[in-house]
Amino acid sequence: MEIKARLWQQAKDAQAAARRLAATRTAVKNEALLAMAEALTDEMPEILAANDEDCEAARRRGMKNSFLDRLHLDEGRIKAMADGLRQTAALPDPVGEGIASTVRPNGLEIRQVRVPLGVVGIIYEARPNVTADAAGLCLKSGNAVLLRGGSEALRSNRTIARLLARAADEAGIPHGAVAFVDSSDRQAVNVMLGLTGLLDVIIPRGGAGLIQRVVQESTVPVIETGAGICHTYVDAGADLDMAEAIAVNAKTSRPAVCNAMETLLVHEGEAAAFLPRIAAVMEKRGVELRGCEKSRAVVSTMAAATEEDWATEYDDLILAVRVVRGIEEAISHINRYNTGHSETIVTRDLARARRFQQEVDAAAVYVNASTRFTDGLEFGFGAEIGISTQKLHARGPMGLRALTSTKYLLSGDGQIRL
Amino acid sequence: MEIKARLWQQAKDAQAAARRLAATRTAVKNEALLAMAEALTDEMPEILAANDEDCEAARRRGMKNSFLDRLHLDEGRIKAMADGLRQTAALPDPVGEGIASTVRPNGLEIRQVRVPLGVVGIIYEARPNVTADAAGLCLKSGNAVLLRGGSEALRSNRTIARLLARAADEAGIPHGAVAFVDSSDRQAVNVMLGLTGLLDVIIPRGGAGLIQRVVQESTVPVIETGAGICHTYVDAGADLDMAEAIAVNAKTSRPAVCNAMETLLVHEGEAAAFLPRIAAVMEKRGVELRGCEKSRAVVSTMAAATEEDWATEYDDLILAVRVVRGIEEAISHINRYNTGHSETIVTRDLARARRFQQEVDAAAVYVNASTRFTDGLEFGFGAEIGISTQKLHARGPMGLRALTSTKYLLSGDGQIRL
Repeated sequence: MEIKARLWQQAKDAQAAARRLAATRTAVKNEALLAMAEALTDEMPEILAANDEDCEAARRRGMKNSFLDRLHLDEGRIKAMADGLRQTAALPDPVGEGIASTVRPNGLEIRQVRVPLGVVGIIYEARPNVTADAAGLCLKSGNAVLLRGGSEALRSNRTIARLLARAADEAGIPHGAVAFVDSSDRQAVNVMLGLTGLLDVIIPRGGAGLIQRVVQESTVPVIETGAGICHTYVDAGADLDMAEAIAVNAKTSRPAVCNAMETLLVHEGEAAAFLPRIAAVMEKRGVELRGCEKSRAVVSTMAAATEEDWATEYDDLILAVRVVRGIEEAISHINRYNTGHSETIVTRDLARARRFQQEVDAAAVYVNASTRFTDGLEFGFGAEIGISTQKLHARGPMGLRALTSTKYLLSGDGQIRL
Repeated sequence: MEIKARLWQQAKDAQAAARRLAATRTAVKNEALLAMAEALTDEMPEILAANDEDCEAARRRGMKNSFLDRLHLDEGRIKAMADGLRQTAALPDPVGEGIASTVRPNGLEIRQVRVPLGVVGIIYEARPNVTADAAGLCLKSGNAVLLRGGSEALRSNRTIARLLARAADEAGIPHGAVAFVDSSDRQAVNVMLGLTGLLDVIIPRGGAGLIQRVVQESTVPVIETGAGICHTYVDAGADLDMAEAIAVNAKTSRPAVCNAMETLLVHEGEAAAFLPRIAAVMEKRGVELRGCEKSRAVVSTMAAATEEDWATEYDDLILAVRVVRGIEEAISHINRYNTGHSETIVTRDLARARRFQQEVDAAAVYVNASTRFTDGLEFGFGAEIGISTQKLHARGPMGLRALTSTKYLLSGDGQIRL
């Protein structure tokens, strides 16, 4: 019960802070973001010491190297967090932005404007930089935030959150607007998922397990993020040099991220020409290939792909390969197995390019470009709080506007409804 | 299990239909809507006969007159349903509408366009007209729909849904796009709430009990609608004639709807002048008043309001009345007890009007006008699928755009991420 009461109080305080933060001027929020950035670089030794303890404990528990790498902070990474806050300060404030405005026949004026969502809950895993990034984006968009990081990063996150909250307080941000769940109790997540009426949205950032748990159990509205089973389809008659460059980029430039390719689909007419060369270049880059029967008839060194492969986000140097009879089969494979993230076709044919973009069901559908571009920075948003793979509220990379709602402001001189 | 398997199949079929419907031209959708309208008027006797049975059964079960009135259909109401479909056909199609478009420094073109949500689940109560209204709005916006009406209206809804689905089929709409849950099994709602991955959103339309159940139990994203505890605040120095006209309109023009006033807040400086006259006119119109102590000190005939009154949506000729010390207390009362629907201030003071609109947390915040204007028709949307009282995705009256998501379409000539 103790954790429940504590979180409820934090959320209640955050809600009160959010109401005042909604009316806080951009200049005050920007000053706070700069002060928060400075606090991180000024108190770097304190953050590094806390992070050392987290890393040491994780090492003792035998966590994998990739996990330890995500957890680890050094001077460069802390500076990058501070720079992120400064960049957020430089972005335009979405709050108050007008969306539509009209005067009704009876003289009633209606304006629709952007307002903050209120209190945003963020549940995340290993990377401590999320603490600063999420706090910064929520603050800039006028939202209070309740942060719950992974328990392995508790000491790092606690230190960062304390420094940020103190700097925000001193810069005139309503107290309680940057709140941190200081507990490694797994129960804390369940409590957050039930804070209906206090939290306005929960955004989970992490692996598929976390996201599924949040979606299944939360009574607070959730924005699903991150899962990415992305496909590249090489169409009949495609420029195979372009196809190779795009496929290699989509698979190998950063295999652990959500916009990386997991499955390569190749038109049967191109299989004989394309598969041997792509197999050679992928193998040279250490990519393990798992192919369908038709693929293996061309490149016999491939392992056999199973049904499970089509539905797996490897996040690793593994690539599933399938030969398809044409665009219809390519689209239906994608719409069956994808996670609604990013898909691309390499083609010279206008009609098939159009059809692919229209019929593939995903946040970002590309023609002749790598799926790796799907992120807030590349889209020109300046920053992102995550990549939504759902259709409600926000879809694709979420910038500051995704952290806002709207409000209708109506002004009259005594209008009544007849 | 039987209902579960049946609904799962309907949703699966609806999803397949939705994928094709997303690419169906506006002209085809409009033709279908006109054919659906014609089917309702052509087969009026069949609908009336089914509705008679529903009404007779409800009467036998001793349902209230207000319930029977909502359930009842006559020629006029069926014609109104058909007219609604024709009006929806005349509205602009939101699908394909461009929202933003940019070319990145590397030449990659990014367009954000509106696309349908996919499959929309609607769970509603007594009124059979929702069957036609919701089917029409979903179809126009390119969505398949799974309709689940109240069990008392099952025969009416079944007949209407069958006529609509047949007309849509014949007009070339993908089969299964207008699906109806033909069962009075309460279990059906639970099954719908768990159809994650098949339904893209569920919109409940009905009483607070239904909405709470859906919000609590659904793993499909939900848009909360409808609950309305709306306030009118009469500020110091307000034009009391205007205040009276607005209060009377907000309370009595249609007391059972969600944008009607439930609580009147009056500045203490105006209480002596305003309360006696508003009490007289309200009482003349059959409104029962329940006041705070200060109100009752002025108008002794009022009943005493309790804490519960501030938190109740009467939907009836009852009005809670409270005297407040000023705008601060008015705003904090509203933000404590409101449901995020519609609020109004009657004032001559610019600063307080501004503050009220900024600080009151609701979908629609009025100055000097009745809260009764909050609906899709009055806002100029042509139609509405409900009024969202949540902040995610859509807030306030939801027109066709609220039934869409977006998609990023990216076109390049071989761009890869460096």
